Parts: sequence; structure tokens; C-alpha cells
Amino acid sequence: MTLPRRAHPRPLDLKTGRVDLTHGGGGRAMAQLVEELFIKGFDNEALNQRNDQAAFDVPAGRMVMTTDGYVISPLFFPGGDIGSLAVHGTVNDVAMAGAVPLSLSAGFIIEEGFPLADLKRIVDSMAKASRDAGVPVVTGDTKVVEKGKGDGIFITTAGIGMVPAGVVISGDRAKPGDAILISGTMGDHGVAVMSQRESLGFETAILSDSAALHTMVAEMVAAVPGIHVLRDPTRGGLAATLNEIASQSGVGMLMEEALVPVKPEVRGACELLGLDPLYVANEGKLICICPEADAETLLAVMRAHPLGVDAARIGACRADTHHFVQMKTAMGGMRVVDWLAGEQLPRIC
Amino acid sequence: MTLPRRAHPRPLDLKTGRVDLTHGGGGRAMAQLVEELFIKGFDNEALNQRNDQAAFDVPAGRMVMTTDGYVISPLFFPGGDIGSLAVHGTVNDVAMAGAVPLSLSAGFIIEEGFPLADLKRIVDSMAKASRDAGVPVVTGDTKVVEKGKGDGIFITTAGIGMVPAGVVISGDRAKPGDAILISGTMGDHGVAVMSQRESLGFETAILSDSAALHTMVAEMVAAVPGIHVLRDPTRGGLAATLNEIASQSGVGMLMEEALVPVKPEVRGACELLGLDPLYVANEGKLICICPEADAETLLAVMRAHPLGVDAARIGACRADTHHFVQMKTAMGGMRVVDWLAGEQLPRIC
Repeated sequence: MTLPRRAHPRPLDLKTGRVDLTHGGGGRAMAQLVEELFIKGFDNEALNQRNDQAAFDVPAGRMVMTTDGYVISPLFFPGGDIGSLAVHGTVNDVAMAGAVPLSLSAGFIIEEGFPLADLKRIVDSMAKASRDAGVPVVTGDTKVVEKGKGDGIFITTAGIGMVPAGVVISGDRAKPGDAILISGTMGDHGVAVMSQRESLGFETAILSDSAALHTMVAEMVAAVPGIHVLRDPTRGGLAATLNEIASQSGVGMLMEEALVPVKPEVRGACELLGLDPLYVANEGKLICICPEADAETLLAVMRAHPLGVDAARIGACRADTHHFVQMKTAMGGMRVVDWLAGEQLPRIC
Repeated sequence: MTLPRRAHPRPLDLKTGRVDLTHGGGGRAMAQLVEELFIKGFDNEALNQRNDQAAFDVPAGRMVMTTDGYVISPLFFPGGDIGSLAVHGTVNDVAMAGAVPLSLSAGFIIEEGFPLADLKRIVDSMAKASRDAGVPVVTGDTKVVEKGKGDGIFITTAGIGMVPAGVVISGDRAKPGDAILISGTMGDHGVAVMSQRESLGFETAILSDSAALHTMVAEMVAAVPGIHVLRDPTRGGLAATLNEIASQSGVGMLMEEALVPVKPEVRGACELLGLDPLYVANEGKLICICPEADAETLLAVMRAHPLGVDAARIGACRADTHHFVQMKTAMGGMRVVDWLAGEQLPRIC
């Protein structure tokens, strides 16, 4: 019996090609996409096993697991893109438990017709963010939906990490008297994305702060293992995140507007766009709530790290059966900083 | 200073309500959705921590991690829905390493306007599948995209599990002489979905085989720790999956068509729909490749499990530098069972 020689497919056309439904169909086209784009881009031992799951050794201990979907629009924005964001955001959610991130998974949902060149740019950016963070993307999945049933590309990453012994960081641990610290300026990410979306040309480009915070967190946890709460103020910004923590911990909070660092250009853009920087998403900042006695140590650790140079103490927790977050305004008054009631910025992450 | 009492929101309208952009905005509406639908539905200790990540203890050892996106259309099909499928599929990808699944994450991407009643139905089904499998959904995320930028709901789950000591199951371990077993009939899932999609009313309802295979795998691994390969033939079906394994392991395969179990009603529907059952997706079946000496033991273990009653030996691996998968046809001829070249069934999982 003579067997036909199996045709070798031509390499993917990464300049003018487009994703089609066969790339999600489980056949040869999908295998080629996975091989030439994903495995080549993310290149690591676990992914190279080419199984439907990645295997690696873990020590005994306290593990954390997290996931986030990324549906940001536009896909490319000043200071980042959906690929780097999908790494930073999930690394940060692992780090906010005080944990050391171990590995990531990535699920891609791609709209038919999406340019392969854009996909490659996103995968390359994601792979670079993953290498820079030292957290490999060990396993993945690709699905393709028909044109008009998606929006370019959505990425869902999951991450796992190990919590150092003795560290118990959780949103329900804030106590009256605890200091509230933030690691830098508020609102950069949301404003960068909104400027791009609205095609606003500001004189000074505003860049997203998208960054992986786990190395700074590792230094913070090493200096003060007894940190009570860490959380990154993403969707809903500082205001929503403080309200979440206040509600989880059953405390009130009092902050001072004048102490919250906001870049002048971000403040200006917020005025123009009708946004309040307290409600605008960040992707490379954290809130830290700790015993008052540890506040200065933690501020010093943050300020010594490139991602924490603008770290500031913005207020304190206090007993309040209503769990209100209140703020002394720059004008000297007091106001309640409530949850965001309606929609502020859809698809900001 | 008098503070306004915080208004208590009305409960979600799970009968006639719809998802809107505020449900993904990071504010109060999202918190309500998460609390009343997801935390209530999935109810488990880790999720109840209400943090952006779940924490739990793990033993030292070999861990596996996997992810899959689910974009199936229609969302509800005979024998399951996108919720149960998103649990079964990812539990199975963990189990195909011979691992014991520990926990799942779930990322939801929902189109604006999606009925809350459908979302609740999906979450309830997912929660039931998770409870039945004993694998909790410990962490999650919700994003909402504008109407026309998605298609109802997409779910991406990730899963982790622990591999028992001494077990090394991987797609590159098939060897010439190994037996090829499958755990049951081929094509049920794909045909069930296609019948629903094409509104075909068959006399006998064809149900998806969607099921979690980890308990059967645990029994197989306990009986034969030296299994070489396990894989679930999902997208691309038996044909694509065998080709993947052949290529990864560098072997050829010879199977017999008459030995592959296919339900008569599935065979009939395939003829009507112009499908080849060998290429149709399964969601509750596995392929097992093992040393010839272990084949009968494994067949007996599978057949004793409710999900493996139709288990069959369908062929063997052999030396072949071309890594061809060949089949003795029912007519007595030979043909190459190639990868699927184009698209067969988009959005089947």
C-alpha cells in the first residue's frame, strides 16, 4: 500500500493573514497556530510538554488561585496592551495575598477575521511580560468565534502562587486604627485607556501604570509579615476597593483627599473627561492596610522600589458600624466616598 | 455630621432582569451579582473568603494546571449546558494527567442584555457539576461587554490537580506495541449539539456524553500506575486526538473501524448531517494508551465504572516514521485517518 506523503503546511502568514474558524477547530490549522505562535512565543518547559495540561512540582503549603478575564478596548493603549495587562493583572491578584506567583494559564477567545499580526503582537507582549515577571504561561487554550460574535480578542488568565508561612493577608483583616497606604498615583491606567478611546491628544502622553507588583510585595511581606490587607484598585478604582475592604472587614475609613497622589496631567484629563480619579482603574498600584506601627517601615520599602516611589499614607481605619469610607476634602469639608452606583468606565480591563 | 443611610439594593430580578454594563463595572451592581448569584451558587469556603484570590492548602508533589474556554452554541443542549461543560471539560483535562483535581477558577464574559434567568440556570448547573465532581469553583471573575460584542456568555475555567507519586502520563509516551483503548461510544456530544443547532428532531433524543471522568481515571491509575497516555477526544474527535498523540510520541497507529463503538442513532445522525463520527467531539470519553500487558486490566476497570461500560480496545501503536494513523475499514480496506484539514464543527465546546 502506498501512503500519501503528508503535506507540510506553509508557515502562518503573520503579515497579512487572519484568524479563521479552523484555527479553533481542533485540527491541523489549530495545531499550527499553537505551535508557531503560542509555543514559540511563550517557550517554556511546561508548555513544551504539549499536553492539555502542564505539570510542575510544588512544595507543601498555602496556595492561592485567581482568574481574570480581559476585555479591554482598545486592545493597544499607551503603556501596554491586552497581552501585558493579562499577565500583570493576574500576577497582581496572586501577589495581593502576599503570595509568590508560580505560573499562569491563558485562554484566548478570538473573533474570526482578527489579524494574525495583531495576535502575534499581543502574544509577544504577553510573553515578554511573563518573562520579565518570571512567571511562565504554562498552559493555554484557543477558541475562535464567528465574526460579529466577539470583539477582536478576549483573554482569560488564571494564576497560582504560594503564600509564605505565617502570612495571612485578606480583605477581612483591616482593624480600627490600621493605617491605609497606597503605592503611587491614582487613575493612570483608566485615563490612558480613555484618552486612547476618545482619541484625545493630550500634550503629555498619559501612560497606563500596568505593571507586575509581586517583587515589591515580596519585599513588603519580608519586612512586615503581619500586613493585614493588600488589594489592587482596578475596576472602580480606589473608592470601590476601599468600600469593598471596609465592608468585608466591618470597619469605617477616613482618608484625606490632599494625601492621595494624582498626576497633574491625569487630574487635568479627568476634569476634561468628567471622571473622578478616585473611581478610575489602576493596574500597577496597590492598597496596603497595616498596623499603625508598621506603616513607616512599609512606606520606606515601597518607596525604595521602582514601582512604589510615590507611595503615600492616605488615612486610617476606624470603628464605624456603617462601614463608611469618608474623606476630608481638599476644601476642608467631609464627604462619603461611596461605591460607584452606575457604570463609569466599561471595558477598562 | 449626619450621614445618609446607605440604601439597600433590591434583590436581583432573576426572572425578567438582564445583565447590563454595570454588572461588570466594579461597583455595587457587580458586588450584588457576585454575592447573590456566584457566591450563593458555588458556596464554598475558599470562595466565601471574598478575596480576588482563593487560598487553600496543598501537599508537596507534582501539580498540573490546565485551562479551557467554552464558547459552545447553543448554550443549552440535550444532556448539558455551557456551565456543566465548563466544569467537566476542565476536570477532564486535569484528570488526563492521571491527576486528582483540586479546584477550579471560572471567568465569565457576558454580553450586555443576557437574561439573568439564563445566567442563574448556567451558574446552578455549573455549581451542581462542581459539587457532583467534588471539585469546588474557588475563585472567579465577571466581565460584561456591549451588546453585539459577544454572544450571550463565554466561560473560561482553569483547573489544578495533584498527580499521584510514580504516575507519568503524557502524550509523548505511546510506544510501538501499546494497546489503544477508548472508554465508550464516539460522537455523542457533537451530534447532540449539532442536532440542537440544526433543530433536527430525531425520534430518539441524542444526549451529550458530557461528564467528569476523574473518578474512573483514579481507579484506572490505581490499577495500572504505568499508563502511558490518557487524553479526552474533544474538538476534532478521536481522529484528531490520535494524530496528536502519534505526532507527539513519534509512533504510527493502526485501528479497526469495526471496533470503534458508535451508537446507532449517532451513526444515523452523522449520515444525515454529513459528519464522520471519528471527527466529532466527545466530552465524557477518554483514550487510554498502555502496555499491551495492562490492556485487559484497564478494560475491566473501565467497564466496571458507570462511565466506561462501553469501553473497547480499538487498535495498537506501531513503529512508523510517518506517524500515520491508519484504519482497517469495515469494508476490509485500509485508509489513513488524517487530521481534520478544514473546519468541521465550530463552537462545539
